[in-house]
This record gives sequence, structure tokens and C-alpha cells, in this order.
Amino acid sequence: MTREDNWGRWGDADETGALNLVDPATTVAALGAVASGRVVSLAQPAGAAAGVPAHRNGSARYMDRDAGDYALGARSPNGFRFAEDTVTISTHSGTHVDALSHTWSGDQLYNGHSSANIRSTSGARRLGAEKLRSVVTRGILVDLVEDNGGPLAPSTPVGADALERAYATAGTEPQIGDAVLLRTGWWDPAKSPAEYFDLEPGLDIGAARWLADHDVAIVGADNYAVEQQPSPDGSTFPVHLHLIHKFGIPLIENLDLDELAATGRKVFVFVFAPIPLAGSTASPVTPLAIL
Amino acid sequence: MTREDNWGRWGDADETGALNLVDPATTVAALGAVASGRVVSLAQPAGAAAGVPAHRNGSARYMDRDAGDYALGARSPNGFRFAEDTVTISTHSGTHVDALSHTWSGDQLYNGHSSANIRSTSGARRLGAEKLRSVVTRGILVDLVEDNGGPLAPSTPVGADALERAYATAGTEPQIGDAVLLRTGWWDPAKSPAEYFDLEPGLDIGAARWLADHDVAIVGADNYAVEQQPSPDGSTFPVHLHLIHKFGIPLIENLDLDELAATGRKVFVFVFAPIPLAGSTASPVTPLAIL
Amino acid sequence: MTREDNWGRWGDADETGALNLVDPATTVAALGAVASGRVVSLAQPAGAAAGVPAHRNGSARYMDRDAGDYALGARSPNGFRFAEDTVTISTHSGTHVDALSHTWSGDQLYNGHSSANIRSTSGARRLGAEKLRSVVTRGILVDLVEDNGGPLAPSTPVGADALERAYATAGTEPQIGDAVLLRTGWWDPAKSPAEYFDLEPGLDIGAARWLADHDVAIVGADNYAVEQQPSPDGSTFPVHLHLIHKFGIPLIENLDLDELAATGRKVFVFVFAPIPLAGSTASPVTPLAIL
Amino acid sequence: MTREDNWGRWGDADETGALNLVDPATTVAALGAVASGRVVSLAQPAGAAAGVPAHRNGSARYMDRDAGDYALGARSPNGFRFAEDTVTISTHSGTHVDALSHTWSGDQLYNGHSSANIRSTSGARRLGAEKLRSVVTRGILVDLVEDNGGPLAPSTPVGADALERAYATAGTEPQIGDAVLLRTGWWDPAKSPAEYFDLEPGLDIGAARWLADHDVAIVGADNYAVEQQPSPDGSTFPVHLHLIHKFGIPLIENLDLDELAATGRKVFVFVFAPIPLAGSTASPVTPLAIL
Repeated sequence: MTREDNWGRWGDADETGALNLVDPATTVAALGAVASGRVVSLAQPAGAAAGVPAHRNGSARYMDRDAGDYALGARSPNGFRFAEDTVTISTHSGTHVDALSHTWSGDQLYNGHSSANIRSTSGARRLGAEKLRSVVTRGILVDLVEDNGGPLAPSTPVGADALERAYATAGTEPQIGDAVLLRTGWWDPAKSPAEYFDLEPGLDIGAARWLADHDVAIVGADNYAVEQQPSPDGSTFPVHLHLIHKFGIPLIENLDLDELAATGRKVFVFVFAPIPLAGSTASPVTPLAIL
Repeated sequence: MTREDNWGRWGDADETGALNLVDPATTVAALGAVASGRVVSLAQPAGAAAGVPAHRNGSARYMDRDAGDYALGARSPNGFRFAEDTVTISTHSGTHVDALSHTWSGDQLYNGHSSANIRSTSGARRLGAEKLRSVVTRGILVDLVEDNGGPLAPSTPVGADALERAYATAGTEPQIGDAVLLRTGWWDPAKSPAEYFDLEPGLDIGAARWLADHDVAIVGADNYAVEQQPSPDGSTFPVHLHLIHKFGIPLIENLDLDELAATGRKVFVFVFAPIPLAGSTASPVTPLAIL
Repeated sequence: MTREDNWGRWGDADETGALNLVDPATTVAALGAVASGRVVSLAQPAGAAAGVPAHRNGSARYMDRDAGDYALGARSPNGFRFAEDTVTISTHSGTHVDALSHTWSGDQLYNGHSSANIRSTSGARRLGAEKLRSVVTRGILVDLVEDNGGPLAPSTPVGADALERAYATAGTEPQIGDAVLLRTGWWDPAKSPAEYFDLEPGLDIGAARWLADHDVAIVGADNYAVEQQPSPDGSTFPVHLHLIHKFGIPLIENLDLDELAATGRKVFVFVFAPIPLAGSTASPVTPLAIL
Repeated sequence: MTREDNWGRWGDADETGALNLVDPATTVAALGAVASGRVVSLAQPAGAAAGVPAHRNGSARYMDRDAGDYALGARSPNGFRFAEDTVTISTHSGTHVDALSHTWSGDQLYNGHSSANIRSTSGARRLGAEKLRSVVTRGILVDLVEDNGGPLAPSTPVGADALERAYATAGTEPQIGDAVLLRTGWWDPAKSPAEYFDLEPGLDIGAARWLADHDVAIVGADNYAVEQQPSPDGSTFPVHLHLIHKFGIPLIENLDLDELAATGRKVFVFVFAPIPLAGSTASPVTPLAIL
């Protein structure tokens, strides 16, 4: 029998969502897949180097102290010199995870928390990025580029059949707590922001249902929205609503999956250690694959 | 024979430093210590929730869209609502890792890179936070609180003997590529910034030499400077200079080691996945211990 | 007969408020007071140099390019060099004017505009700082320091009698469109923010009524709140509500009135040219006195 | 006899530059031109509403508290509600004045101040925006749109002859301390940033010499660079160097001169009251014309 959502499944106060599906036994089992010990980062360059869609504030890096200050005569007590900086980041830019406060419908967030908790003064008092639990679990690469013989065309929908095919190719079955990563080939630093953000290939609602029904813990992609853009007529970000709002499954966006894909590994250990940005609706993250 | 530094050890172009000491075999060996599969985050709350010393810019979280906008009548196409935010972070606040561009002496950074690479316009063109390699290695907890019967007193120096004692307590020997984490008991959200930042117990230069001589890959602590503050007369941040500048060993600061300490585990798998902030001198990070 | 408020007085769409009271004839009349032609700035240092109360975000200045870049070898095409910077400013810090969107009661802003216009996404779509009209009008210095023989004590209320006395001292009567500036002696860069912001001497509600009844266009002071702090029991910023919300009179805060006071001039030409920060609830401003 | 520069003219410590040319007598004389008392703002919308060239950081407005918070249930003690915001501004965007620290050649700023004063840590310790004196002086509109029968074509140079013609049209002679404002017709919110910033019509070096030779105090324009862009071969921003670096004449950029032009007035009172952003290389400003 299929659940309609995960609300109440881990208690009324739960803010962890599907990350609850990863327990120590899941981690131990996942680690059984380690072979070479190679560690692959799945993050794109972050901060000012990351693109931002036009409707969001830009990111910036500001040097508060740098080598130029010393060249101009700043003191170096006992030879000590240092540099430091401040960054401004749109939390939904670069490789990031959407916190469970990111999207909802009506006046309730995931698990029935009141949306009144998301205010200018406080940020997200419920389901903020600091509530995302770090997990180590099994990762599955859904390599649609390989499957398709090249990057997906703009706005291509990815259905449940593609997910089933990927698991079959990987020679395994879906397991509770899996992290499922889609490689669409869409990410390309040379793309204009408008093209990159508005015409993405990605999951359709059927695929989202399939993922939720199989109790995956995390879904990610090498694009900006994970789901097909623009959304089909009569819907707006339906995959976000299904996965985040109904099932409490965080989405990881703007992954760099090329190095992982090049290894040929479809099953790996997935490490998820987001920055606990208090009250934020997303967090930068450097997910890892251990091979 | 003891090295004087790690310059040139991995080639003139190297920007990875002691993280080179962790290779896949190290990772595989480290993973052998996994027992329960429990994952412990070692990060403090980040962003606006993290304290910043008075000489640095403050951090902030700004809500770009929140539930209040919908309460005031913003459109919800097909029921879709979302919230997003922008953060400003002093990169050397909260749980962060110092990139190898953070500190130096004279006109050369670690490995002889010219300090002229650290500019206002470009940030750190060499040794920026995006050059820090993510690693999975063996972690060692040096629990000085346990050793001392309570938090260390202000400005207590921690010497090589304390490190040797910790390894003995852990029942193991130093290994190449270890991540060594010091729990001083200093971190306390109730402390004033001035007290917290200026009077820290921490490593002395002898301990720094011991760590470098044993080829550890990473050093971290539950305080702001890792090393004793204020610095002994005639020196200024000597541990920073020894570890970062000479040996390319990144320092992780402001760790939360309490939950880890409570488990009693002294040896564990340490996961290090810093955010690749392009050109920054530090990066937020959520280090993990896998038990 | 006394008005209860200025709502509707200049039409339902009005966003200018009491600044409407200054017309070209007022300006010409005011300019008649010019004697020496000396121009005195009434602004405190702005930006990162201005204090900010603890509940607001701090201000900062970031150098995007500076002389250090050239010292490190940046190109100087045809000898040309330049420096530039970015600033972050809490708009209610330093010498600033409160826009008419800053404060209200219930769900209506000044003149009945819906408060639903003040959103995270848009800022203030009504009564933002860009709607403040620049004016040149008559200024009156209410020198309470002179009157009192020294700076006012913490939390001293300033009543209508003090205003009447000041006009008498100045040898004139209130005129429609006056800018009335209070010198309390409270501002002092050496004061801690907590003391400065929480215990201010300033206007009481009777004085606010007197000012509105006399149709002044602008009220300012050399402190942070213009009005007595803390507010009397049973009220919260009653002067803000009376002047801004009911009468559309902008408040200028954190003025530097010492140089003006030293001239002995009580009547002068007052120039008000706020920065039209689109959608902001306040604006930095450098008011001038022409003597 | 013509000066080569203004260095030393007002003493070695001078940071005021050509603004020294406006004294109280200049102000009194200028005010003699007031006829109607009408006040015209010459500022474009500021902050996030102002365009920024691609090489600079974007501007932003962040609501720290807004009406949405109250709609979600925030307390309104005694009915009091308020909104506030934080802005990030690239100081060289919108209507702004270049401080005398903005541009130089070699290692000396205007008046021989060492460029080593412009650092990441301190900003401009000499010639920062807070050193710009507020002045009230005579303004002259050079209406090139009227002269040309329409907006100037891209990259049109404006020579000394055009300035002489404008003074003749205005029926007056250049006076010491004049503020000279060029209306090129270039500013247009519909232009793309690339077009707007890269192909501007503006002053040529001969016109810059003419202005300096006539001891004007301020030069402004309704475009981004005041001078012709791109710069003629073999030179880079020669007008900036001549006026700012050699003569200490601040430049006001991105003026809105349309309303002023529509009045037909060529001679008017010019009010200049820049925000004293401590250590910044430019400042937002709302210049006024009093007619």
C-alpha cells in the first residue's frame, strides 16, 4: 500500500523527514559497497563562482584583508600575515540542498508545521537547513546521459521507467534510504543563466511518486530544479511539492556528476553533510561518493 | 629524519598540501573502524547563528521570500509556494576550515606560491578554499576535557605530551593522514565573544611540530584558533604558521565535539567535505564522525 | 481646529505626506534667511562607521579593488588605476530619514495605504524612501543642551513647552513647512550602543501633537529615536506613530547638530535630499543648514 | 597662466580638492539666481533599482522585518508595527559621486597622498567619500540633447567648444566654483547594461582641460563615465585622471537631468550633499537644483 505523504510518520514534531529513513544499519550496509576507497566530490564551484538565476540576488566574495595590505605596509607581527573574506550567497545557488522549509502549499509546511514559522525576522523557525541530518547512505547514479547517448534535450521529462531502468543497469533493487542522483548532462558552465534555469530536463511527477513510494531519503540532480522545466500545464513545481512538501525528501541541486559517471560506478556510498545554516531554506553542501 | 616543511613534496604546483597524505588505501583502512554506523555531526550552528569576533564583519540571513508574502496576497500558482534567502558569512566564523591561503609569512604562501595571488579583485587565485580536497580518513579525538577533568583553563597550552597521552588512551599509534581533533571544552555559546576569542587554551608550538612530524592531514579543535591565545611572547599564531604555511595542514575551527566525546569513541572515521568557495580563505564545513 | 491626522488631505494616492507642506513659496521665503552663505552638514559619518543597535544587521564596507591590487602587479593600462567598494548598510543606522513606510498600526500605513504593500519580495511598494520628496525649507534648531545647560539626562521627556520656548528664543513663530531639529546632546561616539539606543531623551507625545498641529514638514534629532526611550508605560513609540503614521511627517535620526549649534543660529535654511532607495523603509541623508 | 594640477594649492594635507573653490560668497551669489523656489531632484532611483555594470557586485535590498511578519502573528505591542531593511550597494552605481580616492596614476592619489592609504582593511584612509564637502553653488546645465536635436550617438566626444556654446546659450561666463552638468541623453532605463556602460558619449580630454582651467568645482553627467567611452587609443579614462587625480574635481555620474532640462533653466542653484560613507571611494548622492 502506498502512502499519500510522510506527515506524522515520525511524530508530529518531526523536522527530519525522509532522512529518518537512514539509520546506522543503513550506513553500515552502504559502506559494504566500498571497494577502492576513492572519494569523489559531487560539488560545483561555490560562492561567487556559481550562477544565480536573474530573480535572485547575486553572490559575492569580499576580501576583508589580503596580501595587498601587506604590500602597502600593513604590520606583520613576528612575521605573521593572514587573509580573510566575507561571502554573500544566495542559498539556492551552486550545489545546495533544499531544506524542507523551501516549498509548500496552503498554510502548512511538511508534516503540518505552520508556514507562519517562516518569517523575515526569524527565517525558518521550523524545518530550517540546520534541521537537515547528515547521513551516510547508499547512492545510486541514474546516468541519463549514458542511457540517452548524450545530454538530455531541453525540457525532457524523466519518468519512473528511466529510474527502473537505471536500477536494473546497476544490478540492484531500490532500498529504503537510498540517495538517487540524476545525471541529465544539463549542467554546463557555458550555458546562459536563462537557458540553464528555464528549460531543464528533469523528473516528472510519476518519477517523483516512484521515488517516494520506494522510500528514498534524498534525490539530487545535475541541474537547477531536479524536475522538468517549465512545469507541465496546470502544475507548478509538482515534483518539489511531492518530494519536499508531502514526503520530506530533500532535493540536492546543481550537482557535478561527471567525475562520478566517468568511473562507471552506479552504486556507491553517498555522504551528505550540509552546512547547518540556522533558519535558512537551503544550504550549500559538498556531497561525496566513496567508491 | 624530520622535514622542515612540505614545500615541494608534492610538486611545485601543489595546492592540496597535507590532504595529499590521504589516499584511497587510507580511506579503506579508516573505514575498517566502523562499528555501529552511527553518524555524528561535528558542526556548530552556522551562519547568522555563529559568533564572530569584533574585528570581522557580522554574518546575516536575509529572507528574500517567505510565508509573510503569501499571507499578504502573493500569488500561489497551482498552489505552489516557496521561501528563499541570502546569507552573508564571515568565512572564518562558525565551524570552518582555514584554506592554505589563510596565513603565511613573507611573500610566499604554502609551497612557495606567491602571496601576490591573494587580491581584492580575485580573492585567492592559489590555495583558495575550492582547492581543499574532500577526504575520508581516520579521526582521533584528543579529549582534553576528559584528561583534565573539566574544560581547560583560559590560555592553557596543550603540548605534544597531551597528544601522545591521547593516542595511548586510544590504544593506537599516529598514522599518516590522521585527522586529529582537540576537545578543550572551550566552546560555550554563553561565553562573550571577547572571552571566547582572546583567551583560548590550545596547541603550543611543540605540539604543532609533533603533529607535522607525524604527517597528520588535518587538525581541528572546538575553539576559534586551535592554538593557545594569546600567543607566547615573541610569536604570533606560531601554530597556524607551522601547520598551514609550512606543512599545508588545514585547520578546522569551532568544532562541536561534545556528542562525539559522549560516545567514548576516540578512533573513528572522519569525513571532511568543505564547501568549495572559489577564492575564499576559508570554507564552512560540516565534518562527520562515522562510528 | 485640530486635525486628527493627515490622511486624505492630499488625496488618497498621496505618498508624500507632510513634505507636501513645503512649496516653492516656502522655499523662497526660507532662503530669505541666508546671511553668510556658510553651509553646515548635519550628518554623522555613515556606513561602517555608524553604530547599529544589536537587533539590526551590522554595516560593512568591502573593497572590491584597491591600491593593494596594483602593489601586487595588477595592470595599469596607460597608467590608469582605480579603487571601488561595496557597502552594506542597515538603512536605520547613521544619519537617516525614516520613510513613511517605516511604522504603522493595524493594517494601514499612512494615508490608508495597505500594509500588504510591504513585503520581502518587493520591499515597500508604497511609501518607500524613493517617495520622499527633496525639499528646501526653513529649519529651526531646538537647542535643548543650551536650554538645559548641558546634555539632557537619560530618558528625559521633551514636551511642547520646550518647543515653544525654543521658538521664542529664536524670535519667531512656527510656520507651515518648518523642519524642527532637536539637539539633546545625547549623541556621543563614546557611548555604548546599548546605552545610546535604549535610554534616549526625546519628544513626548504632547510635543509630537504640538508639532503636527503646527504643520511642520520634518522633525529630526541628534539621537536614535527622536522620542523618549523607553516609551512611557502603555505606549510603544507613540511619537513615531503620531508623526509618521498619522501625519506623514518623516523623522530624521542621528543628526550631528554640534557645529550648527556652535554658530548660535536658531533659524536657517534646511536642505533635505534623501537617497531614493527604491522600496526601502529609510534612507541615508546628509541634511544641510545654509546660514 | 594655466595650472598643471591643483596639488598643493590648498596645502599638503588637503583632501577637499576643487570643492575648496566654493566659499560662502559663492553660495550667496549662487542663491541670487533663485526665482520660483522650485526644487528639482537630479537623482535616479537608487539601490537595487539602479543598474550595475557586469564587473561589479550587484545591489540588493533585504527586508529584515515587514508587514508579512505581522500577518503571521508577530507581536504589535500597544499597536506598534514597523518595517526595516538592509541594503547592499555598489558605491559606483546609481547617482553617485566619485570620491577623490577613486582614481589615480602611479603611487600617488590627488594632492600627493600615498595610494598606500587605500587598503582592504581600512578602505580609503585619505580622500574617502566622507571627505567630500557639501556645497551649494551655481549650476550650469550643458544640454547637449537640445544642442544636438536629440540624444548623442554612442561614443560621441564632447569637446570644449560644446561647453563654450552652452555657456553662451546660458548667457553667462564660467565662474570659479561652478558645477557643470552634461545632459547627453544617454541614460535610458531600457538600455542593456552592456550598451549603457560601454559606449557612452561624453567629455573628451580637451573639454576636461577647459573645465579645470576655469576652476569649476564639480562636473556631472547623465551617464556612467562622464567621459567618452571607450577611451581614445593610447589613453584610459583620461578625463577621470585629469579631473579627479590632477585637479581634485569630483565627478557625479548617472544624473537624471530630464526634469531640469524640461524647465528650460540653464543656470540654477546646485546643492551637493553626499553621504559621508567613511572610507568609500564613492557615495550615493541626491543633487538638487533650486530654480
